[in-house]
Amino acid sequence: MKLSNRQQEIINLVKEYQPITSEALAEKLGLTRAAIRADLSILTMIDILDARPKVGYIYSGKSSNGFLYDYITEIKAHEIMSKPITVSEETMVYDAIVFLFLNDVGTLFVENDGVLTGAVSRKDFLKIAIGGTDIHKVPIGVIMTRMPNIICGDKNDNAYDLAKKIIEHEIDSIPIVESLEKIGDKEQFKIIGKVSKTNVTKLFVKLGK
Amino acid sequence: MKLSNRQQEIINLVKEYQPITSEALAEKLGLTRAAIRADLSILTMIDILDARPKVGYIYSGKSSNGFLYDYITEIKAHEIMSKPITVSEETMVYDAIVFLFLNDVGTLFVENDGVLTGAVSRKDFLKIAIGGTDIHKVPIGVIMTRMPNIICGDKNDNAYDLAKKIIEHEIDSIPIVESLEKIGDKEQFKIIGKVSKTNVTKLFVKLGK
Repeated sequence: MKLSNRQQEIINLVKEYQPITSEALAEKLGLTRAAIRADLSILTMIDILDARPKVGYIYSGKSSNGFLYDYITEIKAHEIMSKPITVSEETMVYDAIVFLFLNDVGTLFVENDGVLTGAVSRKDFLKIAIGGTDIHKVPIGVIMTRMPNIICGDKNDNAYDLAKKIIEHEIDSIPIVESLEKIGDKEQFKIIGKVSKTNVTKLFVKLGK
Repeated sequence: MKLSNRQQEIINLVKEYQPITSEALAEKLGLTRAAIRADLSILTMIDILDARPKVGYIYSGKSSNGFLYDYITEIKAHEIMSKPITVSEETMVYDAIVFLFLNDVGTLFVENDGVLTGAVSRKDFLKIAIGGTDIHKVPIGVIMTRMPNIICGDKNDNAYDLAKKIIEHEIDSIPIVESLEKIGDKEQFKIIGKVSKTNVTKLFVKLGK
């Protein structure tokens, strides 16, 4: 959405003279109030200007992409997540890496009796693979990042918050989980999906379509 | 940007009766033309409706996120790219992997006398690392993906096209290059940046801010 020159001019006038009434704006532009009504509606609607009754227009300080925030926070994890690829803790590192390639994913999640217990990324695998350990003899349970040290998400988390978590925690992928009944005081989760940088990039492409 | 109920009603009427004039629309809504003028301006501006002079309004068939396309195609590679990490073809695979970890990147680019000659991803490294080769004795030039088999981008390519390339070609990262003088009939490039899924995810978070 590109703003017209007149809309840009209105924003600049509001920034300079706020609060300013539509009459005053129209006068400064040499136009009638009716002529700028649509522009003012648009600028208010997309949150660039705030209309204060009996006071006038003020600049919201927001950029023209406040509407983008509204848009991308409406998209939920369950709409963009993909199928998680899981292995058991006993899987040997070598076999897990082969499984990673077969499924062409960047992260494997580790399950024990239907409960998410860990995650291993391509980076973790590469580290162990060059470390001189015999990867045929080490089970994945030994090298995985273990719960609760994994950033998880809920199926109703929005795309923006998930992408933010990925960037802030410098991770590739977030498991989307559902809470299971507690065993003692330990909260347990079942993995139902994952949202990765790939899912976010796909969403980005879809948005532009 | 959320459409109001009235705007949604207008869209539905246009879909049903197109082409339809603003008078006819106003009548169907039991309103004056002036009352719906701003709504029609907005719907036309965000490309949901097309206004055909002397004919009336028609439905463009576009969804309300056409404006998103405009927005993200205005963002260029040079605004979002990050510094590429490069090594020479002679670097041993083991040393290259250590360098990858030190720089915390997913892809290394390979340069020869300032010319981009190849790229190696974490996935390529993992494949060779578990393959039984002595990674201390194999230079990266042997395992890299070699030009011209690398999808490259230009600093003026837009964010949408780059993200689309990443998804379509199932790659993690696109080197942003500048053309150098040809040696014979072979086009050569210098790498000046890279755009990865991380850059796209960061942009996505920035858009929502």
